[in-house]
Amino acid sequence: MTMRFFATPQDAAAAFYDALERADLDAMMAIWAEDEEVTCTHPGGERLTGFAAVREGWRQIFASGRRASVRTTDAVQRQGVLLALASVHEHYSVPGEEVPRPPVVASNVYVRGAQGWHLLSRHASGAPATSGADISATLH
Amino acid sequence: MTMRFFATPQDAAAAFYDALERADLDAMMAIWAEDEEVTCTHPGGERLTGFAAVREGWRQIFASGRRASVRTTDAVQRQGVLLALASVHEHYSVPGEEVPRPPVVASNVYVRGAQGWHLLSRHASGAPATSGADISATLH
Repeated sequence: MTMRFFATPQDAAAAFYDALERADLDAMMAIWAEDEEVTCTHPGGERLTGFAAVREGWRQIFASGRRASVRTTDAVQRQGVLLALASVHEHYSVPGEEVPRPPVVASNVYVRGAQGWHLLSRHASGAPATSGADISATLH
Repeated sequence: MTMRFFATPQDAAAAFYDALERADLDAMMAIWAEDEEVTCTHPGGERLTGFAAVREGWRQIFASGRRASVRTTDAVQRQGVLLALASVHEHYSVPGEEVPRPPVVASNVYVRGAQGWHLLSRHASGAPATSGADISATLH
């Protein structure tokens, strides 16, 4: 596994979406921090913790054979010295599907190390198709 | 609205869970950064962006009248100079419910400002009741 150098969190994010669209597992894992404390939560999924578990999660997703193009909107970003947060809406377009899928809300946290910026944590969940939805039904 | 001072992200987190258990809206909002770029995503919900929207989300949740005690496990934390990440599993105990609810995965990002550490972003989603679940069914 070769870790790629990313000068900014935005560079790492661009490589993330490129790897996602191409379903390229090696490229995907090259943007993650090589750290036992990386976490990745896919929509509807449990939290995957540690590099090996995160890799296995992406391997399973990419193995499904489905492909999508992704565009992001509504970015809210904050960059610190060592950590950076990017919250976005991700819109997946799947060939053959005519009805757009509801967006995915994603919170991505990047960490700066000797090899530049890499993904430390990703939390993604499906947004409800209709705005507002059942927030008051969420006990939480 | 009085902003409280928190010397560490952990102090802010403790106040967050205390406010959540007491369903105290003013106490809850005192731990958020007063920032137009705060974001909060409740389980199953859309992303709420901006202090007013985040406040309204908590108001609706607290207005439901349901109360729960919360404990956290599996904390993964990383603190930078200006930002800090805490990923946890939250376990909600609701009076009268005998079957435990599945945990909530929460990614909380804190920001340091003149008034100490405050919550900048919270992303929470329900973990599947059974481990592993349908990760490969997630297109994503």
